[in-house]
Amino acid sequence: MSRVDLAVLGAGPGGYVAAIRAAQLGLSVAVIEADRLGGVCLNWGCIPSKALLTGAELVENLTRHGETFGVTASGVTLDYGKLIDHSRKTADRLAKGVESLFKKNRIRWIRGRGRLAGPGAVDVEGGERVEARHVLLATGSTEWVPPGVEVDGERVLTSREALASRRCPERLVVVGAGAVGVEFAYVYAMYGAKVTVLEMAAQMLPGADPELADVLRREFRRKGIEVRLGARFEGAKHEGAGVRVALSTEKGAEEIAADQLLVAIGRRPLSEGIGLEEAGVSLDRRGFVQVDERSRTAAAGVLAIGDLAGGPLLAHKASEEGIAAVEFLAERRTLPLDHATIPSCIYAQPQVAWIGLGEAQARERFGDELRVGRFPFTASGKALAAAHSAGFVKILAEPRFGQIVGAHVVGAGATELVAEIGLAMTLEATTSEIAATCHAHPTLSEAILEAALAAEERSINF
Amino acid sequence: MSRVDLAVLGAGPGGYVAAIRAAQLGLSVAVIEADRLGGVCLNWGCIPSKALLTGAELVENLTRHGETFGVTASGVTLDYGKLIDHSRKTADRLAKGVESLFKKNRIRWIRGRGRLAGPGAVDVEGGERVEARHVLLATGSTEWVPPGVEVDGERVLTSREALASRRCPERLVVVGAGAVGVEFAYVYAMYGAKVTVLEMAAQMLPGADPELADVLRREFRRKGIEVRLGARFEGAKHEGAGVRVALSTEKGAEEIAADQLLVAIGRRPLSEGIGLEEAGVSLDRRGFVQVDERSRTAAAGVLAIGDLAGGPLLAHKASEEGIAAVEFLAERRTLPLDHATIPSCIYAQPQVAWIGLGEAQARERFGDELRVGRFPFTASGKALAAAHSAGFVKILAEPRFGQIVGAHVVGAGATELVAEIGLAMTLEATTSEIAATCHAHPTLSEAILEAALAAEERSINF
Repeated sequence: MSRVDLAVLGAGPGGYVAAIRAAQLGLSVAVIEADRLGGVCLNWGCIPSKALLTGAELVENLTRHGETFGVTASGVTLDYGKLIDHSRKTADRLAKGVESLFKKNRIRWIRGRGRLAGPGAVDVEGGERVEARHVLLATGSTEWVPPGVEVDGERVLTSREALASRRCPERLVVVGAGAVGVEFAYVYAMYGAKVTVLEMAAQMLPGADPELADVLRREFRRKGIEVRLGARFEGAKHEGAGVRVALSTEKGAEEIAADQLLVAIGRRPLSEGIGLEEAGVSLDRRGFVQVDERSRTAAAGVLAIGDLAGGPLLAHKASEEGIAAVEFLAERRTLPLDHATIPSCIYAQPQVAWIGLGEAQARERFGDELRVGRFPFTASGKALAAAHSAGFVKILAEPRFGQIVGAHVVGAGATELVAEIGLAMTLEATTSEIAATCHAHPTLSEAILEAALAAEERSINF
Repeated sequence: MSRVDLAVLGAGPGGYVAAIRAAQLGLSVAVIEADRLGGVCLNWGCIPSKALLTGAELVENLTRHGETFGVTASGVTLDYGKLIDHSRKTADRLAKGVESLFKKNRIRWIRGRGRLAGPGAVDVEGGERVEARHVLLATGSTEWVPPGVEVDGERVLTSREALASRRCPERLVVVGAGAVGVEFAYVYAMYGAKVTVLEMAAQMLPGADPELADVLRREFRRKGIEVRLGARFEGAKHEGAGVRVALSTEKGAEEIAADQLLVAIGRRPLSEGIGLEEAGVSLDRRGFVQVDERSRTAAAGVLAIGDLAGGPLLAHKASEEGIAAVEFLAERRTLPLDHATIPSCIYAQPQVAWIGLGEAQARERFGDELRVGRFPFTASGKALAAAHSAGFVKILAEPRFGQIVGAHVVGAGATELVAEIGLAMTLEATTSEIAATCHAHPTLSEAILEAALAAEERSINF
């Protein structure tokens, strides 16, 4: 038996970051994790997928834009297996990095699955019991697969199997045009697959500002990726070496034959079998743990963060919650995390990123007085020079002071550009403050400046 | 004769932006420009060079990193002429864009060279006289070439000729490892030239934080670009179809034979022959116009901005000065431009960007209490996934509140990352405020977050 101040269940971007912060604050910490450190994000999500996306960008830049830059390649071979190998190496290296961070911060890693065992106790499979003043649940989530769909890793995959598969199919159907579906569709298409994306909603990236989704869809079409909106996935059955996918649209039922099906419909919390209900932790009807603004569950001494505690299911949200939760524990924090300033990013090309309110939400709140500043990348010198001029920046500001309430970016660099707006929103800054900031020329970040100027009705370059 | 509120001499990024802002503020504006709109920056500087750099990045990504991503080509042809064509098209499109902006803002473009002709008057070659309540001088700068060096556009070039030359030489000598020299060295090297860079100073990018320069030098060496520091350029003579470059080092005199020499030593103001001294405008000994913090010269009613008014010789500095100058004129501004928050960017790979004080300057001011936060891109998941992990972020903060006084970035994405710090410094933000900002994972901008955390001695991922 061991005794610690804090026992963390799960070493994903919520758990490992919380553990490090807790150790910094002087708590003794044990992390219980059966798999590799880093969780889904590092091992089977954010990180390896970004490795794939970098390859896809290279392929696109070479094949679609090479001639513009005088670069012609003959005999181009795309070895998708090597791409996967690079993504695995990247994940391996980072997982080892987290191990070093644990050593540096004197965090004990207990290998095994943990289970809440009454107040202040966690049982680890294999027999060890950890007694802890506080328990932080950070078990995360896993892919949700509709009933009746058999994931075999050959014909039917989730992102988990896809990230381990060295094969690029000839014909791929992706179900779901959320972040995961969009990113994989782009990667496979660039490496040669004929990709069809099925999305039940009337737009890609349901929940995103529709203008962003429209640009993404148009650009995907230009890249030869077929996106079918209003297409409900009805099931799939194995057929020979491939798969037959059933869908329904306004026009009726339909089937598509493909070599692979990637199911990217959503995720479900990993809240089963870890003793939550027995310990008095409340779950919502979808299985997410219910928490207050300090990440406290209904059970005394038990906290929950990250995907397990509900959306948005984003790694950086988990990390921030983890930091906030342990800072509250250590009485080093008074303000809760502001969920209004958590950015969302999709890393396909064009990239999509947003933060804060969408335009429709903002109009609901502020009416017609809402300030909207736009700037298209077709007016950006840097974007034109790079031959990546699709997309735009849109900044939303409340009418009284011009305080920024949301920003929406689609186009090259979007996922980095949103950082400036994140800081602006955290500081409750106005568009005039962004407008007063000297932005380097020529950069894509000037589009943020110009959108801010536009919100003030004093655009310079548009 | 025409009469306007504001006559602007020169349509570069200082002049054209000032003209638009003045028109927005209700002034009638004429811009006198003999060449194309957009100035050196748009036509022969920032913009076309970024087009070249995008091509160079593609070549490097393909040839150096292609295999990592499973992208191999049996034959790669590099047509430097096509690259130049793309850069020209980009510049043409943007110059036309400025023309549209002039029409939209009802700014009159008078084609010709202008010359101050007494108080409130500008003579345009060809005979027209423009009477103006205010005259804004924005004639910019041009390449400085040492006496005795003959620029023929074939063997000896400045950036101006280089941007028009469709030829990539086999052996190139670049004199000067400032921004221009570094960017061209990178471009030509990626398109196949054997490049030698001569720099008189003990580091590349004289004036930049030496740590940035060290990483740049190391990476250039890895790319096969030879950089010789402490190498003084002594002259060049044409030799057959090439050039013989004389230099001196500690060890004595030396000569290098090359096909082309690119002279990138510096720029000089375009302050001659435009009637400045006659009008009572004071120049410093290098020919830069002396101005006060509202851009006013010694002559009543005459303002000067941008390169003409002294360093840093940067397009965005010129634009900001132009906006500030006309806002002062229109009594729409009370605070002068803060020159401490003007970012500097170099767009080779690795990119280099900085803002505010260098570490040595900051230590001089704040002593050993200076807070320094570092984060290497080798610990960045996004950088590793993209196989671009050279470099680091360094944030400097004063000891009392942690207010950011400088930031230095070398590595992929540096020129975009610096925007967040620009906003932070404009808002007098602290490292704890950056640390409180949720940064999207995985992005390069997380390196800014981590460096801010490091300055607070609470690094998470390093």
